[in-house]
Amino acid sequence: MKSGKVSPLAPESFPDLPPIPGIRLGAVAAEIRYRGRDDLMLAGFDPGATVAGVLTRSGAASAPVTWCRERLAAGRAGALVVNAGNANAFTGETGHRDVRSTCEGVAEALGCDVDTVFVASTGVIGEFLPMERLLAALPDAVAGLGDHWERAARAIMTTDTFAKGATRSARIGETSVRINGFAKGSGMIEPNMATMLAFLFTDAAIPGDLLQTMLTAANAESFNAITVDSDTSTSDTCLLFASGAAGNAPPTAVDDPALAGFREALAELMQDLAIQVVRDGEGAEKLIEVRVTGAESDAAAKVAAKSIANSPLVKTAVAGEDANWGRVVMAVGKSGVAFRQEDLGVAFGGVTIARHGSRVEDYDESRVTAHLKGREILIEADLSAGPGRARVWTCDLTHGYIAINADYRS
Amino acid sequence: MKSGKVSPLAPESFPDLPPIPGIRLGAVAAEIRYRGRDDLMLAGFDPGATVAGVLTRSGAASAPVTWCRERLAAGRAGALVVNAGNANAFTGETGHRDVRSTCEGVAEALGCDVDTVFVASTGVIGEFLPMERLLAALPDAVAGLGDHWERAARAIMTTDTFAKGATRSARIGETSVRINGFAKGSGMIEPNMATMLAFLFTDAAIPGDLLQTMLTAANAESFNAITVDSDTSTSDTCLLFASGAAGNAPPTAVDDPALAGFREALAELMQDLAIQVVRDGEGAEKLIEVRVTGAESDAAAKVAAKSIANSPLVKTAVAGEDANWGRVVMAVGKSGVAFRQEDLGVAFGGVTIARHGSRVEDYDESRVTAHLKGREILIEADLSAGPGRARVWTCDLTHGYIAINADYRS
Repeated sequence: MKSGKVSPLAPESFPDLPPIPGIRLGAVAAEIRYRGRDDLMLAGFDPGATVAGVLTRSGAASAPVTWCRERLAAGRAGALVVNAGNANAFTGETGHRDVRSTCEGVAEALGCDVDTVFVASTGVIGEFLPMERLLAALPDAVAGLGDHWERAARAIMTTDTFAKGATRSARIGETSVRINGFAKGSGMIEPNMATMLAFLFTDAAIPGDLLQTMLTAANAESFNAITVDSDTSTSDTCLLFASGAAGNAPPTAVDDPALAGFREALAELMQDLAIQVVRDGEGAEKLIEVRVTGAESDAAAKVAAKSIANSPLVKTAVAGEDANWGRVVMAVGKSGVAFRQEDLGVAFGGVTIARHGSRVEDYDESRVTAHLKGREILIEADLSAGPGRARVWTCDLTHGYIAINADYRS
Repeated sequence: MKSGKVSPLAPESFPDLPPIPGIRLGAVAAEIRYRGRDDLMLAGFDPGATVAGVLTRSGAASAPVTWCRERLAAGRAGALVVNAGNANAFTGETGHRDVRSTCEGVAEALGCDVDTVFVASTGVIGEFLPMERLLAALPDAVAGLGDHWERAARAIMTTDTFAKGATRSARIGETSVRINGFAKGSGMIEPNMATMLAFLFTDAAIPGDLLQTMLTAANAESFNAITVDSDTSTSDTCLLFASGAAGNAPPTAVDDPALAGFREALAELMQDLAIQVVRDGEGAEKLIEVRVTGAESDAAAKVAAKSIANSPLVKTAVAGEDANWGRVVMAVGKSGVAFRQEDLGVAFGGVTIARHGSRVEDYDESRVTAHLKGREILIEADLSAGPGRARVWTCDLTHGYIAINADYRS
């Protein structure tokens, strides 16, 4: 973890996360890589908890990702263990053995089935986990389980400059339920199916398959709609655990009207956390929201929006507070999505710059420049080619990104 | 154009380009955007010259690109006119009218058919050309036509820190022919079908269709194999003009053995210029060659190589001289090409770091670190999944890139 300043885009403080019945968590210092800080997080679930997850699509997925993928279908969760400082990625057979040893250690300490233990690791690629120190830390981690949300969120940080948490409540039928979540991620962020690491917890009683459908849908418009640097991690993991302790009548179908409120709360919470990840983008000074409308489909709109959000020239222009809207035209042009140049419109901060393929006559650059001096930037492109729309979030590309990544071995 | 220092990767000097019979060229200061420097380049071809070209695939292609695309099929060339400082891109009907006026002015001044005039523009997107100044400069440009290769190469520069030229000779049958070329480009460089701007000239007599076939093939392994920042320009243009003045027996088929030497010389010259563009990548301190072997196909190898070459985390690691090879694993993983993680090998500077999916036992990081302190970096990845191979060139990502692009309106 970098010492040094907190992102200027950080929220004022970590939110107050309430207890979630049926779920206890905490963290300890295992000296995986860092010294003098928590770097091992553990969560234990009461019997009967369900789980859903989305995982990186990287062809070089880490050993923990492979472990989780093989156990998600069963939908049952007993525990979650996460370390920071070492990704246990590209570690071959040793990596897989270390995952199993870790999960066996947790299962034994908590008295749950090893195949209900989920695991995630984040940090350096290509190095083996220090298994002795990790296993030696487990008894203290178990002994310390409780309602330690912020401490858990801090323990999984790497280059993050602040801990990212969020909470929502909803009703399922007459029963009030809670969802807490926390995430980490700052660089190597263009999640493909999931963010770096995000963990969500609820006391709702929801079968694993329904949980999975809702998680996948909400993921598309949250963690899969952000990018810091276009680099998809080997370790992206987003897991949602449901303890069932709220005692609501379990829904049987995903279109059950009783689930509408929960679905909305989940989507909100995930978007909240995803944007916090962008706010902590390495070197970020500005949060950029890209909205594309008028594409042939929502998928095409997302391709165009990602092309804008990943363009180093767009991101440096925002860093320089330069109203260089031609770079947005360039980025839409290179994206490969269908549109006619003579229909393209571009706006920054709600100020229309171009319409129908050329600059508007009364374009007032000073208003755009004023918008660009702020912390939250809105870039809009309208393709006039169909009903497709997408929103994507990113951050600017600054000297800070270079400084962090030319030094830090992550 | 940035004042300030020349790229540390620049060649010692501009090469000595010989005259090419049948081709005269020069440059003047038209004050398109810059003051006190040439910014308008003109070339005139004797009657009978042929032309081939590859152009950007951007959906927001500039007006000059559209003009050239419509006239390449005929394969006849009378003149070439190029301005720097304004891309005439995203300029709607006005842009198309301005291209026609420019070409009409050139055709009239040189006495050639307007539809044999080729045109390219590079610079700011979305602004109209100052047509009065441009047209007023044409008579001086015509009067000054001669063998002014370096002056022509300098006139088309924007953020370039040095002029890029190359020359080769070859034999077609018994006849000796020459090829000269120059290029510009520094940012917004991930050519898709062509580079930013590259112009190639030969006195060989070669029909336009054969010229086109050879150009397209050589382009795939030169301008289409480089990337500075993953941003494909609206203006990428590579044109090859053949005056025929050498008087060789015109070949009738592209597989004519008499063309072998010319084809090789053309490929060499284009690769030379393409690498010079990377050497002038905005902020570049190191030239990076990425070689991928063992992919399912050459196309898959190029996708993986581009994924490595475009990764901000790989490029910043090289900038920081950090042997962070895990980022190469990440970049191959996110590329989507087929490979098994347990077969992947990675080497830096010829030093094998990982083989068969994990780090080699006797890995000596100090040798890799020593290699990374140099100016020319070699990154190799072997996928062991087939015979496909590709080479791609890029540069590191430094504070210089941020400084240039957060300030410069290009």
